[in-house]
Amino acid sequence: MPESFTPTERTRVVREPHRGVYDRLEIYKILDEGMVCHVGFAAEEQPFVIPTLYARVGDAIYFHGSAASRMLRGAAAGISVCVTVTLTDGLVLARSVFNHSMNYRSVVALGKATLVDAPAEKLEALRAFTEKILPGRWEDARQPNEKELKATSILKLPLTEISAKVRSGPVQDDEEDYTLPVWAGIVPLHLQAQAPVRDERCDPVIPTPAYAANYRR
Amino acid sequence: MPESFTPTERTRVVREPHRGVYDRLEIYKILDEGMVCHVGFAAEEQPFVIPTLYARVGDAIYFHGSAASRMLRGAAAGISVCVTVTLTDGLVLARSVFNHSMNYRSVVALGKATLVDAPAEKLEALRAFTEKILPGRWEDARQPNEKELKATSILKLPLTEISAKVRSGPVQDDEEDYTLPVWAGIVPLHLQAQAPVRDERCDPVIPTPAYAANYRR
Repeated sequence: MPESFTPTERTRVVREPHRGVYDRLEIYKILDEGMVCHVGFAAEEQPFVIPTLYARVGDAIYFHGSAASRMLRGAAAGISVCVTVTLTDGLVLARSVFNHSMNYRSVVALGKATLVDAPAEKLEALRAFTEKILPGRWEDARQPNEKELKATSILKLPLTEISAKVRSGPVQDDEEDYTLPVWAGIVPLHLQAQAPVRDERCDPVIPTPAYAANYRR
Repeated sequence: MPESFTPTERTRVVREPHRGVYDRLEIYKILDEGMVCHVGFAAEEQPFVIPTLYARVGDAIYFHGSAASRMLRGAAAGISVCVTVTLTDGLVLARSVFNHSMNYRSVVALGKATLVDAPAEKLEALRAFTEKILPGRWEDARQPNEKELKATSILKLPLTEISAKVRSGPVQDDEEDYTLPVWAGIVPLHLQAQAPVRDERCDPVIPTPAYAANYRR
């Protein structure tokens, strides 16, 4: 696989092109940090956007998809989707309202998603979902049985047509605005975990695992 | 306007219907708490999902949209969109992998988005974007001039076909799994602000405004 994705007409960042990112590792890093993706698909010309969990495995992402998977039955070639992952890193407070912005990293992946049928691949995808968010959890929890595996709809999207858009760094004001007596700066944002809440029916002798006690994204 | 939205075939929550929410106030509360929405639209059968800022004003939402707005030129009746807002409230660690979940609140709004042309309405939308995230900022910052207003693409979606899906509360395990020696519980998640970072060119005599110093979502 090349180190950088070739932008297509559909993935080239047109507005603010300097924010476009096509480097494979940088894109994968964003995908691996995100927790929820937004999957877009169209049904009878109406687009739908559904949040769901996902994980990257190699050069593909797997995602949970009951809504999209209903459409997929019988569509062996897959359906066209757009999978978008967005991380919000900060509020950008410029001196002018117009130059207010956000620091963010987002990835847009296009292609045909197909249903994962093979139980072994499904299991591998579920393992990736779990381990991505909570490394170590897969071995601690009861793993899926055959019936549960059957009840799980997982879709796969190969990562071939993909780009990212990233805004980072300081405020960018118009030159003449810098003298205005307006506070300007960044308010960093971060998805933070609070102290875990033990389930009422969880025996207190069971220690809280580190991935829950010190959860960090 | 009725107190509750009537679910349509397209907005009724089919999977896990007990998580479906149609109450207007509850849906608006989620929209007002969210910061970024994901807008879905289709171009030549390819769906696209783009993150962008938005604000609810009455029974409509306004959102920034350069990509979608390119398609809108000449489409006076608007284009079909899906606007989705997702808040992630926590990780749900069940005893079985299968029952792992997230606590979340998401809203899906469908309809035709149109370009906002009237400068006064554009200004009102920009004010709503700003005040929603940073109450007080509109008066502090330099407000948009005519040229900036012209350069801003804002879309409007009336909220008529809309529903929410909410998962909250504790772990739900299969009855026979409760005896397993597996830690179970919730890891609450919250989008947290860190201390604001003053712009290098911002005069230190300008005090940090409260909305930046004590930013809370």
